[in-house]
Amino acid sequence: MTGPAWTEDALVAGVLAGDRRALARTISLVEDRAPEAESIVRRVYPSTGRAASVGVTGPPGVGKSSLVSALVRHVRGLERTVGVVSVDPSSPFTRGALLGDRIRLSDHFLDPGVYIRSMGTRGHLGGLAEATLQALLLVDASGKDVVFLETVGTGQSEVEVIGIADVVLLVLMPGSGDAVQALKAGIMEIPDVIVVNKMDHPSAQTKLQEVRSIVALDPDRKRRPRILLTDALRGEGVPELWEALVTRRAELEERGELAERRQRNLSGEVETLAVARLRERVREAMVGDAAVGAAVERVTRRELDPLTAVSLVVDSVTGTG
Amino acid sequence: MTGPAWTEDALVAGVLAGDRRALARTISLVEDRAPEAESIVRRVYPSTGRAASVGVTGPPGVGKSSLVSALVRHVRGLERTVGVVSVDPSSPFTRGALLGDRIRLSDHFLDPGVYIRSMGTRGHLGGLAEATLQALLLVDASGKDVVFLETVGTGQSEVEVIGIADVVLLVLMPGSGDAVQALKAGIMEIPDVIVVNKMDHPSAQTKLQEVRSIVALDPDRKRRPRILLTDALRGEGVPELWEALVTRRAELEERGELAERRQRNLSGEVETLAVARLRERVREAMVGDAAVGAAVERVTRRELDPLTAVSLVVDSVTGTG
Repeated sequence: MTGPAWTEDALVAGVLAGDRRALARTISLVEDRAPEAESIVRRVYPSTGRAASVGVTGPPGVGKSSLVSALVRHVRGLERTVGVVSVDPSSPFTRGALLGDRIRLSDHFLDPGVYIRSMGTRGHLGGLAEATLQALLLVDASGKDVVFLETVGTGQSEVEVIGIADVVLLVLMPGSGDAVQALKAGIMEIPDVIVVNKMDHPSAQTKLQEVRSIVALDPDRKRRPRILLTDALRGEGVPELWEALVTRRAELEERGELAERRQRNLSGEVETLAVARLRERVREAMVGDAAVGAAVERVTRRELDPLTAVSLVVDSVTGTG
Repeated sequence: MTGPAWTEDALVAGVLAGDRRALARTISLVEDRAPEAESIVRRVYPSTGRAASVGVTGPPGVGKSSLVSALVRHVRGLERTVGVVSVDPSSPFTRGALLGDRIRLSDHFLDPGVYIRSMGTRGHLGGLAEATLQALLLVDASGKDVVFLETVGTGQSEVEVIGIADVVLLVLMPGSGDAVQALKAGIMEIPDVIVVNKMDHPSAQTKLQEVRSIVALDPDRKRRPRILLTDALRGEGVPELWEALVTRRAELEERGELAERRQRNLSGEVETLAVARLRERVREAMVGDAAVGAAVERVTRRELDPLTAVSLVVDSVTGTG
């Protein structure tokens, strides 16, 4: 799969040296689930953990990719290298974009200090989570100073990969009523920093105040996120946003919470990926195990209750059947 | 656990006879994970499938419970019996409510033709999904004509139980910008019927038009949901909403799609619950299996890559380690 020019050793060396083609090639191997991909990730793993990672989440259409694009420009201005991994199916990084955004992105594509990668949603979500973690580790190992992980999020942990980032930025817009309600109801996790993007909209200030009043309910002042207004397309508020992200990360580090959080994140990631693999085994059992298939069939005829079928599936997967 | 007055046989007979106390007692056993609960569900399962089930989903704060309450009143006026199972942590059915809603709910509590049950979120989500399916089957077996399943949903299948319903109603409000964007981006599944609640809000009509234009993009006319305006608190639009739900279900039945959908739902539910059980096993392995615990520990020290740890966890759970 690696072709004559790229042995596994060459890819490992290339990734560690920050070679863009080696990085791109390896992430493609990851997406193709090529056996050498896992081995490469294993070999570069001790060189990870140096990048500052920022998870960027929020409902579709709020301008997450434009904001990431603006942040990339700002961070490049500070002479730091940047990686972007996007797993948002509604994102222009992932899906193709309007002309304006394309131009914006292609600026970065020509910059050797920036590596942008969108993760295809061709596999199911489980495989995607695993591929995304691997991509993130590879970009980290390639020596990028900052890595942005962009995912769409409308509440709970649909795409659980966001949990791997050092700090999490939630992007909202003036129309984000549902996300604000979800924060209020306590069913959306409080992030580190919140941005209300499209600050020129007449109701942006109202939304800002609304979010502030919800966040102020948390008695633990340390945990309260900073809340800012931005206009991603014009770059307004972007330096302040970057400052807020850097400050939050530094505070976490000072209090020893960053190391703790990273441990928790990695352990959570191991759990998520193990469950994703077991989900695949469940699907295989439901199709490939004749006894299990027959049981599910009987459930749909109301002859066998679903919980007995669930036990059969679990037994088939765990080898206790 | 069942106490002297309630043997397992008595509970089975009670549930099948529509006895409210037997039903309540059995669902409590389900929530407590008492061993006899599964046996009772197994025994009543052949009597399920008669109720028309309606999944009610939508972001928090849009008025789902008020709307369910209004629908219950309407359906009772048609002399049909009703069950409500709520798994929305932000719902007054589940969490306690404002005085107005309480009075509204207690009306129904006194009506022997209505059974309302909120599922506690005391367990984790996996256990909750299993308990909710069991509760739904028990209410169905108790002979209720209609069962509403209320869950909070802001996009993808956080609480996957909604997938078990015959028809799905998505409730939005004029401020539901994020949910509308999620529909537009194709990351939220198109339901059978969509309601814009709080119809007196000045932007309700605008939101209705916005949703209509998104839905009209689907070339398959049969799949396009009906979209209505309601005011749950005043009961406006509720008879029309009920009519839309009944009509959609009848159309599905006529085209033979209801049976297909129920088969797919049950099979999907078996998968979901099997994965939920395996997730528990993963958590147990990460805490209880010393080798796995040590591996995860080494991951957080960057000595062992996460994917190797994932393989160890999966091997531990599947007994191949």
